Amino acid sequence: MNRSISEFALIAKYFAPLAVDPAALGLTDDACVLPQESGRQTVVTADALIEGVHFLKSDPPALIAAKALRVNLSDLAAKGADPVGYLMALALPRDIEESWLEKFAHGLSADQTEFSVSLLGGDTTATPGPLMIAITALGSVPQGEMLRRAGAGPGDSIYVSGSIGDAGAGLAVLQGELEAGPGAQTLIARYRRPTPRLSLGKALRGVATAALDVSDGLLADLGHIAEVSGVRLVIEAGRIPRSLALQAVWPGIEGIMRAATAGDDYEIAFTAPPGVDVAAAFSKYDVSVTKIGWVEKGEGVVLLDEGGTALPVARAGYRHF
Amino acid sequence: MNRSISEFALIAKYFAPLAVDPAALGLTDDACVLPQESGRQTVVTADALIEGVHFLKSDPPALIAAKALRVNLSDLAAKGADPVGYLMALALPRDIEESWLEKFAHGLSADQTEFSVSLLGGDTTATPGPLMIAITALGSVPQGEMLRRAGAGPGDSIYVSGSIGDAGAGLAVLQGELEAGPGAQTLIARYRRPTPRLSLGKALRGVATAALDVSDGLLADLGHIAEVSGVRLVIEAGRIPRSLALQAVWPGIEGIMRAATAGDDYEIAFTAPPGVDVAAAFSKYDVSVTKIGWVEKGEGVVLLDEGGTALPVARAGYRHF
Repeated sequence: MNRSISEFALIAKYFAPLAVDPAALGLTDDACVLPQESGRQTVVTADALIEGVHFLKSDPPALIAAKALRVNLSDLAAKGADPVGYLMALALPRDIEESWLEKFAHGLSADQTEFSVSLLGGDTTATPGPLMIAITALGSVPQGEMLRRAGAGPGDSIYVSGSIGDAGAGLAVLQGELEAGPGAQTLIARYRRPTPRLSLGKALRGVATAALDVSDGLLADLGHIAEVSGVRLVIEAGRIPRSLALQAVWPGIEGIMRAATAGDDYEIAFTAPPGVDVAAAFSKYDVSVTKIGWVEKGEGVVLLDEGGTALPVARAGYRHF
Repeated sequence: MNRSISEFALIAKYFAPLAVDPAALGLTDDACVLPQESGRQTVVTADALIEGVHFLKSDPPALIAAKALRVNLSDLAAKGADPVGYLMALALPRDIEESWLEKFAHGLSADQTEFSVSLLGGDTTATPGPLMIAITALGSVPQGEMLRRAGAGPGDSIYVSGSIGDAGAGLAVLQGELEAGPGAQTLIARYRRPTPRLSLGKALRGVATAALDVSDGLLADLGHIAEVSGVRLVIEAGRIPRSLALQAVWPGIEGIMRAATAGDDYEIAFTAPPGVDVAAAFSKYDVSVTKIGWVEKGEGVVLLDEGGTALPVARAGYRHF
């Protein structure tokens, strides 16, 4: 760290302006204080991003900031929560430039406006290791309406928002493993700048029987719903929604398998009872919702090809571990 | 990390048993869900500890766990909050042993029982860098009763709990800079295992006009109260409470200065109006409370020697930055 600026000056200059919610007390205290309201519940989630694991040192600081915040907001979206704000523990290598911090703070600021959240508190420290951003995001839901991984039942249909696999292909492009032609920037943007599906998540309250956001790969994450709900999830491979950019670079059944096991989609996968007209319920949202399968008795995730034959499914998707 | 255990198995084996509060949903979801109650507020604080900065690689894992949790509970104590639980983002070097994790989890478990808190959620990831533990602690207070750094007024008295400087001397012993003789273990224990003053903090609701926990050094932290409250804090050096173990190794006025600028005390410093009989109010607590000075108009912190002469005070104490 450029020692010409102290921790206090750094917080005052770059982070206090982000603490727009009165609950943050302007970052003048060691804590924030949030209202409670009878009939509501607080939802809290935490996700840390580490340089060299979740992002590259060369990534633009504003995009690193956006990703750190958005992966946490995506967790709130998948719970059906209204986002409130976030605390951020930031471990900064000593050689980081102040200009980096300025761009990082700008990235947070833009997303705070877009998603109506405020920085609420946190901690800034030096580290001899890689840059680390640990965010804890807070939201709220009406009492009893938080969406969970548990709750999927036999007969439910399975849905996913948006398209799957773009982010995984975008990462492959960034890593030099894939030539993506004209669609490359679209795919890269999906990797670097996920979109938390907050409106959709909120609309799923009282509709979805189980939900989560797709971060480790569609099949791996559906495996969590299967395990916690105690059911089998059957997916029709051909129904998994894929963008045209993705279909151009990852075609055929092999491409579908790659899409379904790549991570970082940050779409919402959910189950809902068969009587619900999901297409009608969600036609007003910016993001499409696609039916991809059904829930039955049993365990695990089964992927069917177009002839109805089960394809081999590896147990886990991409893990940052 | 020993790859014979996956992230999921690790969470199930070592961390799910710590998620005793139903709000944690057994760590089966990506979030916890906490009740809200009208007439109360949620208090949230975050502090991260990094290997090589806040603790040493050779420190016992259970003590690292205790320190990571206790520094956060200390922040809640200084706010007068009832602790509820915590989320933990854990970045683990790949070479860490499973036996280390087992001891670390035991350390958390013991403190959860002692302080009536539960693990509520978090994130576990691998890191190419040093071990990092980022904890976000949640508590609650009756509406409007959170203690703040702002609020100290001219005429108030200044108090501090326990004794000051022990932890700083303990660190000096560990670093081989100090021979502490028979008191060494006492001092080291104060550094490694701070005690969050939760009962005292709760009792200070409605009594203290300003409060914080002493983590960066008594004078530096009092400087925060002076700044945020817009007042001058006058401290009588001879009144700063010091243990016998400390007085033996850091004697005289120089020793007092070292004690008042060392960090990691995790005592509560607070201000209260002159009419409050603090000795009587707090005689029932395990920890003593000592009056060390008064608040007047002005700014900054002034340290007086026994003759009433102002001693030079450096602006900041120890910062992990």
